[in-house]
Amino acid sequence: MSAAPEQTTAALLLDAARRRGWTVAVAESLTGGLVCATVVDVPGASSVLRGGVVSYATDLKATLLDVDGALLAERGAVDPDVALAMAAGVRRRLAADVGLATTGVAGPDPQDGHPPGTIHVAVETPTAREVRSLRVPGGRPLVRTVAATAVLRLALELVADGPAAG
Amino acid sequence: MSAAPEQTTAALLLDAARRRGWTVAVAESLTGGLVCATVVDVPGASSVLRGGVVSYATDLKATLLDVDGALLAERGAVDPDVALAMAAGVRRRLAADVGLATTGVAGPDPQDGHPPGTIHVAVETPTAREVRSLRVPGGRPLVRTVAATAVLRLALELVADGPAAG
Repeated sequence: MSAAPEQTTAALLLDAARRRGWTVAVAESLTGGLVCATVVDVPGASSVLRGGVVSYATDLKATLLDVDGALLAERGAVDPDVALAMAAGVRRRLAADVGLATTGVAGPDPQDGHPPGTIHVAVETPTAREVRSLRVPGGRPLVRTVAATAVLRLALELVADGPAAG
Repeated sequence: MSAAPEQTTAALLLDAARRRGWTVAVAESLTGGLVCATVVDVPGASSVLRGGVVSYATDLKATLLDVDGALLAERGAVDPDVALAMAAGVRRRLAADVGLATTGVAGPDPQDGHPPGTIHVAVETPTAREVRSLRVPGGRPLVRTVAATAVLRLALELVADGPAAG
């Protein structure tokens, strides 16, 4: 059986995190649990994955992930700084070393003036934080899969590039 | 295109909840985000789904979902009363009308003496609460899919049987 790209990336991320002794947590908006479910599918995930929050409703980004309410009011939920704040929040709230976050517009309708396919993914580790923004043409499942793969890939890069453990 | 059984059940659940004016939140352990992702895949989910918590690590069931620490210490995470407490906790923490919860052992190894395939799913609504326990032979993906379908079906039954809105 060949694995989907996001599953392969999730397996590599778990290996890299395990080598550093780092745990992982996930905050998801448009992906709605897909990133977490992909990571859980990797055998041995429980030694690395703490868990996740699906903050689908915008107010939950503030109450569950400590995203600044003023930032959400000013920019809306689809914003690179909101993605960074979600990654920081899930890392702190779930007591994990690495926080992953996704926000964006799966479609079919625009949100806050952002067209469907707008994606922001962010990762925070003990040594780095980064956000990537992309735009994908396509339907809801494709947008979600691209977002999930993008955040897993960014996390893999930052975790694999981190300082060696111990 | 034919939808998978859990997708059909998710769509029916969203319709039933929408008719009652009820919102939905999901607490997941062994399903790891699969239930939430399945609900998100239904068009129009955002008007009903608040979000979810993946409490994969046991301590997160206490810190994120208010499951009693003494209950967790005495019974472990794979327990029908823990499932009920997760459903109540996610409903309260995410300010939703309906809380869904899954816990169990995806395998391949037993957990706390419970064999792989042990599943407990629970749902709490404004008018009812119920837990169902089942045991499924099969690998991790099958156990997860059965758990996701079981909790969505239980939620559909309780929400569809609830008192009419207004």
